[in-house]
Amino acid sequence: MMEFPERVQINEVVLRDGLQLETKIASLEEKETLFRQLVEANVQTVEFGSFVHPKAVPQMANSGDFYEAISTESAGPALIALIPNLKGAELARLRGVERVNFVFSASDTHNEQNVNKKTAESVEELKAIQEFCGKNGMVLGVSIATSFGCPFEGEVPPARIHELTDMLVRMQIGIITLADTTGMANPRQVSELLSGLKDAYPQQKFNLHFHNTRGMGLANILAGLDAGIDSFDTSLGGLGGCPFAPGATGNVCTEDVVHMLHNMGIETGISLEGLLTASRTLETVVGHPTPSYLLKAGPSDRKYPVPNK
Amino acid sequence: MMEFPERVQINEVVLRDGLQLETKIASLEEKETLFRQLVEANVQTVEFGSFVHPKAVPQMANSGDFYEAISTESAGPALIALIPNLKGAELARLRGVERVNFVFSASDTHNEQNVNKKTAESVEELKAIQEFCGKNGMVLGVSIATSFGCPFEGEVPPARIHELTDMLVRMQIGIITLADTTGMANPRQVSELLSGLKDAYPQQKFNLHFHNTRGMGLANILAGLDAGIDSFDTSLGGLGGCPFAPGATGNVCTEDVVHMLHNMGIETGISLEGLLTASRTLETVVGHPTPSYLLKAGPSDRKYPVPNK
Repeated sequence: MMEFPERVQINEVVLRDGLQLETKIASLEEKETLFRQLVEANVQTVEFGSFVHPKAVPQMANSGDFYEAISTESAGPALIALIPNLKGAELARLRGVERVNFVFSASDTHNEQNVNKKTAESVEELKAIQEFCGKNGMVLGVSIATSFGCPFEGEVPPARIHELTDMLVRMQIGIITLADTTGMANPRQVSELLSGLKDAYPQQKFNLHFHNTRGMGLANILAGLDAGIDSFDTSLGGLGGCPFAPGATGNVCTEDVVHMLHNMGIETGISLEGLLTASRTLETVVGHPTPSYLLKAGPSDRKYPVPNK
Repeated sequence: MMEFPERVQINEVVLRDGLQLETKIASLEEKETLFRQLVEANVQTVEFGSFVHPKAVPQMANSGDFYEAISTESAGPALIALIPNLKGAELARLRGVERVNFVFSASDTHNEQNVNKKTAESVEELKAIQEFCGKNGMVLGVSIATSFGCPFEGEVPPARIHELTDMLVRMQIGIITLADTTGMANPRQVSELLSGLKDAYPQQKFNLHFHNTRGMGLANILAGLDAGIDSFDTSLGGLGGCPFAPGATGNVCTEDVVHMLHNMGIETGISLEGLLTASRTLETVVGHPTPSYLLKAGPSDRKYPVPNK
């Protein structure tokens, strides 16, 4: 029989991963409305934006202003910015950001598309970023993109992920995220890779980031839960995708994941009703329907009236 | 670590469950084209239609003619008809159908909506159906609808499913299908219920029928696989739903399930490419896009050319 944790941490990434692929650029005001509704729903961790070149990802150009607008309350959720390089860490610091997540790719070709560098060069840069964060009291997490496959190179060997993880563990990175950038992961792969990593590094905190490109997102989360993982990135409405990965489509949908977890008796601390309110707002902001199942079907404890025959 | 079977049987239900909810009624010719493409894809078991009142489900009114058209080849897939009562078994027999699947609901309210009877009355009728099938050399399977929850009554206690299963095992029903009629099942429920049933009846063959109403279909299949289940109903393109269950939407999508299984190293004997051909035909037949992920994204071993920068 499968085993599950009692409680799971949900990291809401819609304001970064979700909005970065939308053609309509969300205004500061729209982002703030969404953020307030996520806070209402008791979301504890929010990836609010990224410090990348505004020409590369114009949707994220207002991330600094956005941070200044939402970081006013001390009791709010943890606010994390994605950074692709040291420059990103510096820009984040200038705005007072305290938590950053550095992303590089396990595959050279995707890393080159993303940041114009070989993976080894990004790894080299990570050392400088860690030093910078240490000096400035910033918390640094690391995401390994294309951990389960690369849309250009194909299969990424598990040994490659073990090797990169080993390096990050030695560097004492607090949270290591393995990201399935274009929805190539399958549940057996997740089960085997994460069971192996949990065995090798029992004290290390891992977080998983799945896309639902081929419909396997929730099944991959289930495989992760069974392997002892209790932290997942999810995106409201199931929006998302990497601008530099062809074929990338939505992340796993926050409300669908939270609904599944609650039905399984796993706590998240999040209000499903609150998420659905925010998800309806999101459809208005982006101007199109999202892939959310829950928004269409309602929760499974919804009871229908019996029709007269 | 999770455990998986080496091989899984896929029962294709699009011609019955998939088409019965479509407003456009598929012609005999269109159904035949779809069927031939499914055979080309090497699908081994097909639920081809149902013998129900044509006023209740007009989409299935040509099931008898359809059977006569497709049952000509001895080497074809196993052909199964759904029947809701003894009358259905008799009508199927008149057309020469050799395999039928009797459906009743675990919850009285849904059974009443479906066939105007309490569950106990349907169970009583099952005895007559079994006798009829025995006399006429017909193979009888049984599906328990609303096994994981009822859209009218809510929760269906596991003890209820154990009790009904126990009765069916005693009756020596070859294959027992547990159906999640409106997508209310969650993976923990599937894991616990099926592990319990496999322990209690290790020799019994079970089949699972999931809807993807709340996005949990593939996760529920994963939980079923881990519990030792190796037979699943799936519907091409993810079409489907019960006409007498409000909120019912598509079944788990055949090509998405087969893709996941193959990526996990589990054999199905089915050609994914063949399924995608049939799935494209299906979209033409029904006249709208289907919820298929694979049709949009392509398989995960698809490699993209590296863009020039």
